[in-house]
Amino acid sequence: MPKTFQPPRGTRDFLPEEMLKREHIFSKIREVFESFGFLPMETPAFESWELLSKKSSGGEAIKDEIYYFKDKSDRELGLRFDLTVPMARVLASKPEIPKPFKRYQIGRVWRYDRPQAGRFREFWQADIDIIGSPRMEADTECLAVANKCLKNLGFNNFVIKINNRKILNGILESMKIKEKEKVLRVLDKLDKFGFTKVQQELQSLIGEKTSKLLKFLGKKGTPDILETEQFPENRNVKEGILELKEIVSFSKVYGIKNLEIDFSLVRGLDYYTGPIFEIVIPETGMGSIAGGGRYDNLIELYGGRPTPAVGISLGIERLYEIMVSKNMLPFIKTKTEIFVARVDQRFKEKVLEVAEKLRSFGFRVQTDLMNRDLKKQLEFANKIEIPYVLFVGEREVKTGNFRIKRMKDGKETEGNIKEIIKTLQKELKDL
Amino acid sequence: MPKTFQPPRGTRDFLPEEMLKREHIFSKIREVFESFGFLPMETPAFESWELLSKKSSGGEAIKDEIYYFKDKSDRELGLRFDLTVPMARVLASKPEIPKPFKRYQIGRVWRYDRPQAGRFREFWQADIDIIGSPRMEADTECLAVANKCLKNLGFNNFVIKINNRKILNGILESMKIKEKEKVLRVLDKLDKFGFTKVQQELQSLIGEKTSKLLKFLGKKGTPDILETEQFPENRNVKEGILELKEIVSFSKVYGIKNLEIDFSLVRGLDYYTGPIFEIVIPETGMGSIAGGGRYDNLIELYGGRPTPAVGISLGIERLYEIMVSKNMLPFIKTKTEIFVARVDQRFKEKVLEVAEKLRSFGFRVQTDLMNRDLKKQLEFANKIEIPYVLFVGEREVKTGNFRIKRMKDGKETEGNIKEIIKTLQKELKDL
Repeated sequence: MPKTFQPPRGTRDFLPEEMLKREHIFSKIREVFESFGFLPMETPAFESWELLSKKSSGGEAIKDEIYYFKDKSDRELGLRFDLTVPMARVLASKPEIPKPFKRYQIGRVWRYDRPQAGRFREFWQADIDIIGSPRMEADTECLAVANKCLKNLGFNNFVIKINNRKILNGILESMKIKEKEKVLRVLDKLDKFGFTKVQQELQSLIGEKTSKLLKFLGKKGTPDILETEQFPENRNVKEGILELKEIVSFSKVYGIKNLEIDFSLVRGLDYYTGPIFEIVIPETGMGSIAGGGRYDNLIELYGGRPTPAVGISLGIERLYEIMVSKNMLPFIKTKTEIFVARVDQRFKEKVLEVAEKLRSFGFRVQTDLMNRDLKKQLEFANKIEIPYVLFVGEREVKTGNFRIKRMKDGKETEGNIKEIIKTLQKELKDL
Repeated sequence: MPKTFQPPRGTRDFLPEEMLKREHIFSKIREVFESFGFLPMETPAFESWELLSKKSSGGEAIKDEIYYFKDKSDRELGLRFDLTVPMARVLASKPEIPKPFKRYQIGRVWRYDRPQAGRFREFWQADIDIIGSPRMEADTECLAVANKCLKNLGFNNFVIKINNRKILNGILESMKIKEKEKVLRVLDKLDKFGFTKVQQELQSLIGEKTSKLLKFLGKKGTPDILETEQFPENRNVKEGILELKEIVSFSKVYGIKNLEIDFSLVRGLDYYTGPIFEIVIPETGMGSIAGGGRYDNLIELYGGRPTPAVGISLGIERLYEIMVSKNMLPFIKTKTEIFVARVDQRFKEKVLEVAEKLRSFGFRVQTDLMNRDLKKQLEFANKIEIPYVLFVGEREVKTGNFRIKRMKDGKETEGNIKEIIKTLQKELKDL
């Protein structure tokens, strides 16, 4: 066997059957995004290394996961690792854009991560961001959009976890813990490494303060705990709690259920400054299917004016994987509605003519491209599951009367082209 | 001013207003692709360097234009420079896919080219390919699809140039010219460098044969010249002419006009083996807006079974540029249909409730996210050109009667929510 080539490690090809499933996901998500007034925006696949490697962009952890390269003029570049950093770059350099600016982007990002189930080196994210508003209405709208996307896709059993970086920061302040970043990085591993490991690591960082810290952060539950729990006296903590209460209150209007307050939630990326979100489907045992939060400093750090911002990102790969495993995606082999079959060689041109006529009425139509005999043409139409076949032969050309066959049950209909088109319009609409 | 970041040289950001224009192009093209039964497929942004740098992939010229990098395990990779090579790789490794296989792909490709007007280092192509058919029906279908895409976008004055690599090869054979590849590479520069320069370069390659060669290849005109012109006796030439005649004959059925036979057409990429196409709009003075051809060896060269294939690629950037300059694209600032305005602070939740109600009827709706007063809310709705504003204030909440304002002329309508929805459904449909 001669050598064939595979896609690079951690990347995938999507053949049409998979693509039609993925496009189902994209279109359901896009529909919700647009119903809230978000508009599409695109940025390049790669950015300057200087931008991507900034501490505020993704922090040390991300830096090691970026695909790095130089162009032929020795410019240092990297493939984008998320859709937020490039968007913030654009907004920083265009302060004239009216606010609030609401954009969505569904696209590829790349991380040189260890490939594993549901994790790839090239993967798709679907992001919305609201730029310019410091209000919790914006944060809640992000949650409402994500909530609706998941419902629109058929999910019901997800949990929306929220926390606030201000609470995390405030608690660390009030406990006079100086190793803030290191502590947050350890806490971020709670899901991955479990409680004992995190406790050990914290112990070596902050010693005896560990148990008190974990007592505060170990709390999670329904939004009621915002009312009942006692927290250290601290301005940041107070503000953080207040913001979460606002989010909880607006969420009710949007019919958001399954909101969980989780004070241990950190969200890896360094750029968050306020409320943070993470959506999980507990029964899958998988990591989060969406995440986001408020990042009020990022645009300023990229040279822009101080500009509050909040966003959320849906992870397409995990959604896709779960939906495939639960049979939540349509199984379509073709979008073609009619195959125009040639009864014999003499009618090559006539077949194309009829096919074009049908296309002019908006039908999706294929004709034989392989010089196959009638039997083979029907086999092909059957194999890729085209629902109707229209026959073009001597009789049809002479009389102007055509015959269509509905492939699923063999039902035939005859008539002139106008009648045939009417039948097809009616029956395909009912499909 | 603090430093802001620009997109890397040769790449661009597309803000929503531009994206809505580009999506108009994508959707018109996709509509035609699907009407002929083509289905979407995706491949990774990067491929192994070994694949991309193969001589058959793009030839020496392309090799210097590929963005090259290594992953952290020292795998050699490159960003894809077209959509054909990756597709052929997939088909080579999956011989079980039923034929004909008809896929489309609209996506980014990258070439480290000198940036110039209408040329970028990151650009979009829209490709269709038909895999498995050696018949001219397939080649003609590619032309018919491209022809229809351009018409669907509003173009009328384009010329579809066709030639056949077999004719080029046959003429070179019959003239016993051995430096075939070098000669083709020089001929390929005809458009770029002009006749005199090409003549000089050929002279130094094949000496006195130059004028005879240029006499054969200098011919171009309507398809009639296939009947009238005399060509050297050669099997390849004869086959090539016959194939073009078949294409011409099928093209008539598709209503393809402006077909031009141009025997000097080469198309740079090394992988073509039969008919080749190029579409230009002469009045723009620009290079081609689409190009393609038959490449019957490529899939085999990538380790697959011998598999005939043909395709065509539309260049989105040039189409976009021409359409912008000729005002052929819609100017839309928003897709939002209704802004639900809050008359005063007390009605924050009520506004969200009404907005959600409207969304549940399929409307695209925005609400204030900036805590703005009514005047500022209306200014914003006006600025981004949302066509309707619905007011929520004390009177509305008390009576259940709402008021909408049509922004273009200030016309107001009042009624309960059901009546308002009916009015909006009717008027927005008429927009």
